[in-house]
Amino acid sequence: MPQIEVILSPALFHLYDHQGKNVVVIDILRATSAMVTALAHGVQSIIPVAELDEALEMKEFGYTIAGERNAEKVNGFDLGNSPLEFQHPKLKGRDIVLTTTNGTRCIEMCKGAHQIIAGAFLNLDAVAAHLIASNTDTLLFCAGWKNKFNLEDTLFAGALAEKLQGHFDSECDSTIAAIQLYRQNAQALDSFMDQASHVKRFRKFGLLEDKDFCMQHSIYNIVPVMEGKHLVKMDQVMASTSK
Amino acid sequence: MPQIEVILSPALFHLYDHQGKNVVVIDILRATSAMVTALAHGVQSIIPVAELDEALEMKEFGYTIAGERNAEKVNGFDLGNSPLEFQHPKLKGRDIVLTTTNGTRCIEMCKGAHQIIAGAFLNLDAVAAHLIASNTDTLLFCAGWKNKFNLEDTLFAGALAEKLQGHFDSECDSTIAAIQLYRQNAQALDSFMDQASHVKRFRKFGLLEDKDFCMQHSIYNIVPVMEGKHLVKMDQVMASTSK
Repeated sequence: MPQIEVILSPALFHLYDHQGKNVVVIDILRATSAMVTALAHGVQSIIPVAELDEALEMKEFGYTIAGERNAEKVNGFDLGNSPLEFQHPKLKGRDIVLTTTNGTRCIEMCKGAHQIIAGAFLNLDAVAAHLIASNTDTLLFCAGWKNKFNLEDTLFAGALAEKLQGHFDSECDSTIAAIQLYRQNAQALDSFMDQASHVKRFRKFGLLEDKDFCMQHSIYNIVPVMEGKHLVKMDQVMASTSK
Repeated sequence: MPQIEVILSPALFHLYDHQGKNVVVIDILRATSAMVTALAHGVQSIIPVAELDEALEMKEFGYTIAGERNAEKVNGFDLGNSPLEFQHPKLKGRDIVLTTTNGTRCIEMCKGAHQIIAGAFLNLDAVAAHLIASNTDTLLFCAGWKNKFNLEDTLFAGALAEKLQGHFDSECDSTIAAIQLYRQNAQALDSFMDQASHVKRFRKFGLLEDKDFCMQHSIYNIVPVMEGKHLVKMDQVMASTSK
């Protein structure tokens, strides 16, 4: 049976061997939630970049650029990092360059993985079904906040790991803790999340609507995966592989 | 009100400012449990060192040396890392050099802290009372296993953080998660701990008696603190300060 492990922070990533494994990158508030939403609403691809400068350079080549630092939109960028913005019909068919405080850096760290997948509550069931079908050792990689542990990413890792039970083994203490954290709070996620440091930050910036949106479970039946430098919907990958 | 934060792994330690704060080092299986037991049974001091070579050099100067790597006693050492060994009457009044896979390294990392305290279930209440009395910003520093998160250290951090509620503030997601993990399992710690990766390792090495011993709550009313290179019982520190 394949193994599953939960990585609670990017600062712990180097302790795990990710080569040849599936890695689910998790940045619930808001990078991976925004990615899933964008692709579900017809954006052609997301190009995650780690640095603001990279995104600004690509704007000169005609790309739409989106990004945030410390939960705020960046000057000179077309879009921030709100999943609600990414639903706009004018973005259909576009390639969007995205850079965020935590999530997009994590995607860069995963080079060498078998598949790099964007996971969020919004596509929880689709990601779980895909991982079970692919039957490969998998890392659930929480982006956290500036390398620290955070509640929302760990909760999602727990929700996903719970769905994988019976299909994956785990020898990993963080998987046990994440599953228990999710189970314990699944019936009252909203009130539990009110304690999260990130939600307090969101309250200050007036972003609670984003938080509520991101906590919805499985409203999109898509699996975003990296294909070269582009994050695309899984069926596009299947189509291009079978050409 | 002073702040409390939980550090889930040594690989996250650099993200926190420990200068001038109290730091409770936590290595339940078994470094800090062994330290507490030794001092409670009359050992004069523990000299924690990070490397095996340092300990071996000090043996030549007449010190009793103790240590483990990967949960096993090291060749050439007088003692391993079992708290049960440290109860022996022949050790009374001695200074013991100790090196372990995780815990002793963490103590070295804490240089610059106001006080470096060894915490374990065995002295939970004493540490809590001391922290409340000292009313200083505090880090609960989990040694983990080779830089990874582990259940037993996080459970203890949660147990201690819970006792500090009302006396300390926390803005830290790991504190919330640790408290909940402890609360959820406090009534059935033994069966929960059976899942822990470290306990599985202990089963392999026949060390379950050590685990049972280390999970006892507040059987020793002492607070070990670092005084220069020596970990000593708090009343010795008070006595030497008031000379």
